[in-house]
Amino acid sequence: MKSDTDERGLFIPVILGTSRMGRASENVARFVVRHLAAMPGIETHLIDVLELAPRIDGAGEEIKIPAFSELCMRADAFVLVAPEYNHGYPGLLKHVLDTNLKEYIHKAVGICGVSAGNFGGTRVIENLLPVLRELGLVTIFWDGNFSAAQKLFDAAGQLLDPAYVRRIDKFAKELVWMAKVLRYGRERVSLEV
Amino acid sequence: MKSDTDERGLFIPVILGTSRMGRASENVARFVVRHLAAMPGIETHLIDVLELAPRIDGAGEEIKIPAFSELCMRADAFVLVAPEYNHGYPGLLKHVLDTNLKEYIHKAVGICGVSAGNFGGTRVIENLLPVLRELGLVTIFWDGNFSAAQKLFDAAGQLLDPAYVRRIDKFAKELVWMAKVLRYGRERVSLEV
Amino acid sequence: MKSDTDERGLFIPVILGTSRMGRASENVARFVVRHLAAMPGIETHLIDVLELAPRIDGAGEEIKIPAFSELCMRADAFVLVAPEYNHGYPGLLKHVLDTNLKEYIHKAVGICGVSAGNFGGTRVIENLLPVLRELGLVTIFWDGNFSAAQKLFDAAGQLLDPAYVRRIDKFAKELVWMAKVLRYGRERVSLEV
Amino acid sequence: MKSDTDERGLFIPVILGTSRMGRASENVARFVVRHLAAMPGIETHLIDVLELAPRIDGAGEEIKIPAFSELCMRADAFVLVAPEYNHGYPGLLKHVLDTNLKEYIHKAVGICGVSAGNFGGTRVIENLLPVLRELGLVTIFWDGNFSAAQKLFDAAGQLLDPAYVRRIDKFAKELVWMAKVLRYGRERVSLEV
Repeated sequence: MKSDTDERGLFIPVILGTSRMGRASENVARFVVRHLAAMPGIETHLIDVLELAPRIDGAGEEIKIPAFSELCMRADAFVLVAPEYNHGYPGLLKHVLDTNLKEYIHKAVGICGVSAGNFGGTRVIENLLPVLRELGLVTIFWDGNFSAAQKLFDAAGQLLDPAYVRRIDKFAKELVWMAKVLRYGRERVSLEV
Repeated sequence: MKSDTDERGLFIPVILGTSRMGRASENVARFVVRHLAAMPGIETHLIDVLELAPRIDGAGEEIKIPAFSELCMRADAFVLVAPEYNHGYPGLLKHVLDTNLKEYIHKAVGICGVSAGNFGGTRVIENLLPVLRELGLVTIFWDGNFSAAQKLFDAAGQLLDPAYVRRIDKFAKELVWMAKVLRYGRERVSLEV
Repeated sequence: MKSDTDERGLFIPVILGTSRMGRASENVARFVVRHLAAMPGIETHLIDVLELAPRIDGAGEEIKIPAFSELCMRADAFVLVAPEYNHGYPGLLKHVLDTNLKEYIHKAVGICGVSAGNFGGTRVIENLLPVLRELGLVTIFWDGNFSAAQKLFDAAGQLLDPAYVRRIDKFAKELVWMAKVLRYGRERVSLEV
Repeated sequence: MKSDTDERGLFIPVILGTSRMGRASENVARFVVRHLAAMPGIETHLIDVLELAPRIDGAGEEIKIPAFSELCMRADAFVLVAPEYNHGYPGLLKHVLDTNLKEYIHKAVGICGVSAGNFGGTRVIENLLPVLRELGLVTIFWDGNFSAAQKLFDAAGQLLDPAYVRRIDKFAKELVWMAKVLRYGRERVSLEV
């Protein structure tokens, strides 16, 4: 029987990684936020890269966004909602992610790929892996894959295909597991041998 | 003996892919511009993503930048000068690249990776490959690899290590070759079998 | 009007990249071979990595397979049929590809990704891009994406979903275009400026 | 103060991922084995893909190698010593890795990239990331980067550049940390919320 007794909650913000007009990714992000918020012990928050309004006359930590950095510092894990733009990640998402570094170390991240076509954003997920690793994040091995995202939600933003609920539940459980495990590590395991 | 008789010049702009302050990549881009400009039949131009000042309340072709699109439409090939940020490409570079599509189809591109460390920006180059392919560009198999870029140039922006001249010459010749070959294809070879 | 007058045929072998028992990829490869063989001016050939039976007590050009190298040398372009194994390429396919080098330079390649699941082998395609580029190949920007490959063919190996015919036709036309263009380049355009 | 009180040792085998003759990677692997063996509480073992002599008339779990699977099942973490072949991983390494699956889940892995040139195998590392993630492994964010590997060791296989000792020590400490943290997770943290 598993015996971890840490009863503290986890803070898992969801980063909506696009500012494109009419973005289907917003529906995906809100769906993930609702799902996480309904899980016991999980606090979540929608971080919208559009609202962060980063400066573009600089890059990396020289254009740090204090409110964003504070949320990241407090986070135990992250969900990235990343639409696939030309098989890569949205520039604005990367621009914003690059403004932090120590805020991410030894924390968990799960990726929800979003695509207009049939392949569930698999390519943006692959493209993000080296970046997230270098940021110190651990990417879990379950993904959210949202294909044909424009048709997945009704006008009120409600999901039309219930199969996604079960899938996002597996994804969220794996993310929570990794978040707990890495928090244990950050707090209790020394890097000295 | 090779017998292509097309004597027209080629237009090969260099895209400086970062707005970070004190960017060593600017020295790299200016070095590449000087090298290309000295080659017979090559016209070049420095495109600075900072000066393009793209909107960030949108993405892709909805925020098209006419002056940039015109340069891309007229280009036969491109050089990307891409610093490596957290093993990926700068967000601003991707944000700008995504504003075009048909402007790139069946044209050549060469990448100059720039890194503060020892590995010549190899990782940002790998990270760009799927994106450039999806944009319709053909990435040549020679790269520019600028390691420890802050120390490669003097205060006046002159290159301190002459070995790079020979390397960039191989890179430029391969790029010119591919640019000529693809121009022949765009103009003379039908997609119908 | 396009005016290339080269009437010679093209040789485009199809490499079946797996030795897994019951491989659905064999059906895909045979479908692509039939499609290419029916195009005017295209000669094709199925290369089965299982039949090449490469040595494994070495790697790269030290274990060159003469019959395979001769086919590659004669080829104008290639199709890779690559099943997705753990989001990467089959080891045997890479082991075989690595035995050549100059045989590939400035030739075209198209990838057919094959997966048991829904995402059409997109991830093995992304994983192959840096390798194919380093081999000197130009990967076209149309892919074949064969999802749920075990169900796509009947017991006689005939394709059940006719939509794939139209898709593979676009793929094949782009590959033929790139093969012609690069052949022109290899034969007629000098690397010297 | 960190307070994890688990005093059990860790088993961290090193996988030598190439069968190429004269492989410099063997020196790298033996160096890493010696380094790990000298750390308190670490048991290690050299796994040589050449000696595993996998069948090649099949792939994946259908050609499972019992002795290898048992070592992987017992492992808490892995080191992969991966030479860079054409910017990708050696086929034989992938062929062998694909023979297991559940043996890897929620375990740590660190990669030592090996290259003949100057870039420390960075490209094979990037190429392995999606594969290792899909296998259920967590790739740490420190790497070993062995450039010009043929010149790094003397005829007796002793390392000539002491700077690598300090680097591999950081790498090993991070790997041990992740191995401990994930073992805690596997044993003590439930996937149920």
